[in-house]
Amino acid sequence: MAEMVNVAVDAMGGDNAPGEIVKGAIEAINEDKRVKVFLVGREPVITEELKKYTYDPAQLEIVHAEEIIETAEPPVMAIRKKKDSSIVRSMYMVKEGTCDALVSAGSTGAVLVGGQVIVGRIKGVERPPLAPLIPTEKGVSLLLDCGANVDARSSHLVQFAKMGSVYMESVMGVKNPKVGIVNIGAEEEKGNALVKETFPLLKNCPEINFIGSVEARDIPLGEVDVIVCEAFVGNVILKMYEGVGAALIKKVKSGMMTSLRSKIGALLVKPALKKTLKSFDTEEYGGAPLLGLNGLVVKTHGSSKAIEIKNSILQCIAFKEQKINEKIKEKIILED
Amino acid sequence: MAEMVNVAVDAMGGDNAPGEIVKGAIEAINEDKRVKVFLVGREPVITEELKKYTYDPAQLEIVHAEEIIETAEPPVMAIRKKKDSSIVRSMYMVKEGTCDALVSAGSTGAVLVGGQVIVGRIKGVERPPLAPLIPTEKGVSLLLDCGANVDARSSHLVQFAKMGSVYMESVMGVKNPKVGIVNIGAEEEKGNALVKETFPLLKNCPEINFIGSVEARDIPLGEVDVIVCEAFVGNVILKMYEGVGAALIKKVKSGMMTSLRSKIGALLVKPALKKTLKSFDTEEYGGAPLLGLNGLVVKTHGSSKAIEIKNSILQCIAFKEQKINEKIKEKIILED
Repeated sequence: MAEMVNVAVDAMGGDNAPGEIVKGAIEAINEDKRVKVFLVGREPVITEELKKYTYDPAQLEIVHAEEIIETAEPPVMAIRKKKDSSIVRSMYMVKEGTCDALVSAGSTGAVLVGGQVIVGRIKGVERPPLAPLIPTEKGVSLLLDCGANVDARSSHLVQFAKMGSVYMESVMGVKNPKVGIVNIGAEEEKGNALVKETFPLLKNCPEINFIGSVEARDIPLGEVDVIVCEAFVGNVILKMYEGVGAALIKKVKSGMMTSLRSKIGALLVKPALKKTLKSFDTEEYGGAPLLGLNGLVVKTHGSSKAIEIKNSILQCIAFKEQKINEKIKEKIILED
Repeated sequence: MAEMVNVAVDAMGGDNAPGEIVKGAIEAINEDKRVKVFLVGREPVITEELKKYTYDPAQLEIVHAEEIIETAEPPVMAIRKKKDSSIVRSMYMVKEGTCDALVSAGSTGAVLVGGQVIVGRIKGVERPPLAPLIPTEKGVSLLLDCGANVDARSSHLVQFAKMGSVYMESVMGVKNPKVGIVNIGAEEEKGNALVKETFPLLKNCPEINFIGSVEARDIPLGEVDVIVCEAFVGNVILKMYEGVGAALIKKVKSGMMTSLRSKIGALLVKPALKKTLKSFDTEEYGGAPLLGLNGLVVKTHGSSKAIEIKNSILQCIAFKEQKINEKIKEKIILED
């Protein structure tokens, strides 16, 4: 039998904790026998939630943690002070090797800081990028960095491109993934100082399939598999996806309610529409991995429902089995 | 009678020139007696197009320009070499005072460079931002800078905030417009170096109504009237608007075509949907002004149709009558 994939799940993080988190964990273990979940958080609450489900007890363990890090807390201080929080406990379980990965819907800041400070970076990795999958017309693309490291340098972006390529190839099965850098025009001479400095470095990097600039307008088309940018820009892209999408869907819905005729039409199109729009929902694809750490840290949306937690846990299987971190190490060491 | 507003229109710029440009110009003068349009470009072509329409000849003049600046040309060189191009001629007409404003759907680079080099900046203005109106759930917001000046400094962003406030108050009629800075979190300590440096400057600026950070996700909600950011980020926001919007509308349409039931529904919802989605189309609002120049330069989409050209020309009336540039001068001089 193959080795189990051990995943620590922060049962107390996110707006829908612990209910949806526990539900997602159960769904994951019931779907795949290769996973063992460690639910980290307040034991009595978790036990209570678990009563709702049937599952194989060999695939689940509760790890008590008394404290909770709130979203509004300054993350560095929170990580330092709240040693008995669900996030910090989960981080140590990865660091010490009890777990291969952790999934948290809790404070983004705390997850990013904890990942770097507790789990630690792979030797040679300068900055670990947050790398969510975003939906496109053709499937999904990986966007990195998406919020972990503002004011990045060009060398960081080159590492993002390499790590992102490994991820897309090994976890998502995209052969020779196309890498693009977010730019404000298609020509090589366009861009700000960082992009102009990074462009030739990517162009001359033999380990990636660099295809040049990608304009934000074209990201949803899905022509580029690995989209590289610094964290501020990546965060803006991700949030525009969510914001414009939500606003437009609201418009579509209200547009359909303007006349009796359109209301009847709305009833008829609803089921089909729901299905297609689902494929454009970022939460369908699981959380965002923080790449380049000694272990896998996955950050899901604060608003995560069970499905995102489940998908994030299942992601960890491919991550381990495909030996992503070993491949990242090779790429990074090759560079030095 | 009030003074006429003289607008130079680059008849050769954009994907749909000269047909849609001339059409938009005619629609503008037929709609408003206060405008006189100078169609700049190849005289024979323009004359041919004009045969299709009836209009008051006192409101229209043709200014011959032999050359055309192509989108792919390096802008600085093009502006310097092609003195007899429709863009350069239009720029000089504004500089020399024959026209109050110019509208072009041509090369963005050439319009930005020409605006700075030929039309020239208002004394005290460090960088003229490109400031499109973007649709929101509540109406429109002004996004600046949107592509004119990459690698901006904090002092530039403060000027953008002031100029944008003047525009929203005087042209769009928004009382005491709310100003926000694009950030990756709501808290003051969040952001990259530029945002952290700019935030306190905006907070302590008595001439604007600064309400703090705005996350990209919340831009479509329309809570902020003047959205300030540096050009790279602004360009990404604008293009994500267009890209995500287009991708989602395509999804909605294909979703409706998946079953007979939904196809019938689609027929019923179509008219209502078309109307609501129109309000989310950036082209409905006219082009983007380049603020802070000695005259008004309006850049429209390369794909502009007549409606955008018309709306851009009509925008120039409010700009002149509301003495926007005098108000900008006051705000900027006050600062020094």
